[in-house]
Amino acid sequence: MKPFVRVNCAMSADGKLAGEERKQIRISSDEDIKRVKELRRSYNAILVGVGTVIADDPHLTIKNADYEENPVRIILDSNGRTPDSARVLDGKAPTLVITNESCTKEWPGVEAIRCGKDHVDLTRLMDILSKEYNIESIIVEGGGETIASFFREKLVDEYSVFVGGLIIGGRDAPTPSDGSGWVAEGGIRLNLFSAETLGNGVLLTFLPEY
Amino acid sequence: MKPFVRVNCAMSADGKLAGEERKQIRISSDEDIKRVKELRRSYNAILVGVGTVIADDPHLTIKNADYEENPVRIILDSNGRTPDSARVLDGKAPTLVITNESCTKEWPGVEAIRCGKDHVDLTRLMDILSKEYNIESIIVEGGGETIASFFREKLVDEYSVFVGGLIIGGRDAPTPSDGSGWVAEGGIRLNLFSAETLGNGVLLTFLPEY
Repeated sequence: MKPFVRVNCAMSADGKLAGEERKQIRISSDEDIKRVKELRRSYNAILVGVGTVIADDPHLTIKNADYEENPVRIILDSNGRTPDSARVLDGKAPTLVITNESCTKEWPGVEAIRCGKDHVDLTRLMDILSKEYNIESIIVEGGGETIASFFREKLVDEYSVFVGGLIIGGRDAPTPSDGSGWVAEGGIRLNLFSAETLGNGVLLTFLPEY
Repeated sequence: MKPFVRVNCAMSADGKLAGEERKQIRISSDEDIKRVKELRRSYNAILVGVGTVIADDPHLTIKNADYEENPVRIILDSNGRTPDSARVLDGKAPTLVITNESCTKEWPGVEAIRCGKDHVDLTRLMDILSKEYNIESIIVEGGGETIASFFREKLVDEYSVFVGGLIIGGRDAPTPSDGSGWVAEGGIRLNLFSAETLGNGVLLTFLPEY
C-alpha cells in the first residue's frame, strides 16, 4: 500500500506558481488559505522539494499545533541542499529529509533517508514511508519540479489547484508541473471531480486517469 | 474608443497552452469548443500572433460562414514571418497582417498595416483598427507571447480561460501569458466574474483591475 498522494497548489489565472524569480506571491484567497490549513490537519505528511525550501523557507506546520499534532514534514532533496538555517529544521514537527544514496549530509534533529541513485526514487520512497513510517497520506505542495516528478511516476491520486485572480506573466515563471518535457506521452488525462468558488478564485479538483 | 478586447484561451490543469514543441493539443471539451464557435460569431475580429500561425496553421474562420460573415482575421507579425501558404491567407475572410514599420513584405489578397518601430505598437494598432476599420471588438486567441503583450499594455478588458482535465508538464511549455518577466510589477489583479463547468473542465472569466 502506497500512501494516498494529493497535490495541492495555487496558480495564477495564467498558470503560474510564482514569478520568474520564484519568490512566493499571494495567489490564494483567504478562503483558500483557510481550506489548506484544514486540509493539512487531515494528512499524515506534507512534502515539498528543496527548491521550495530555498525560495520560500516555509514552516510547513499547523499554527499552534504541538510537535505530535503536526504532519510529518518531508523534504525531497537529492543532493542535500537544505540550508542548516531552514525553518523546516526548527524541530517543531517530525521531519524527514530525503536524499540520494551518495549524499552523506546530516541535519541536526531530523532523520535523513537515502533513496535512489542520482535522484530520489519516489516509488521506493512511497513504499518506505508507508511501511517504515506508517504514513498513509501525503500532501505534495510543490514546487513545479516536484509535482511533475510525482505525475511522471503516476503517484498522484488527487490534484487540487486553486486558480486565483492574478496574471503574473513570464515564460520562465514556475508552473504546477514543470520538469523536462511532457509528464507522459500526450499528457495525463484527469477527470474533473469538483469546482468551487472560494473568494476571488476557484478551487478545481481532478482525479488522474492512468 | 479602443475596441473591446477579450482574451480567450484554453490551458491544461497545470497551466499550459500546449507541450514544449508548441503543437496544438486538444485541451477544450466539446462544450467549450461549441462555446468558442458561438463567441467568434459575436466579435468583429480574431487576433493571433504569428507564432500561432506557424505552429498551428489555423483557419480562424467560422464553419460555413461567407466571407462577409467571418470576423476579420488579424495576425500580429512584426517581422513578416507569415508563410505564403498559411491558411489565414486563404481569402475566406477579411484579413490584416500587422508588421513593424521597417517590414516591406506583402501577401497576396490581404492588407498589411505597418505600425510600431521594432515590435507592433498595440495601443496605436487598437486606435487604427477602431478608427479606420470600424472594429469594435476583438478576441485574442494566443499565443502566450501575444496575450502577455496585451496585458502589458493594459489592453485586455476580459479574460476567459478554459481549464481542462489534462497535465502536460515541461518548464518550457507555453502558458497563457509568457513574454519576458512580470506583465506588471506584482502582476495584474483580476476579479473573478464567473466559473462554469463545461464538460471535463471549467471556464473561468475574469475582469482585469488596472
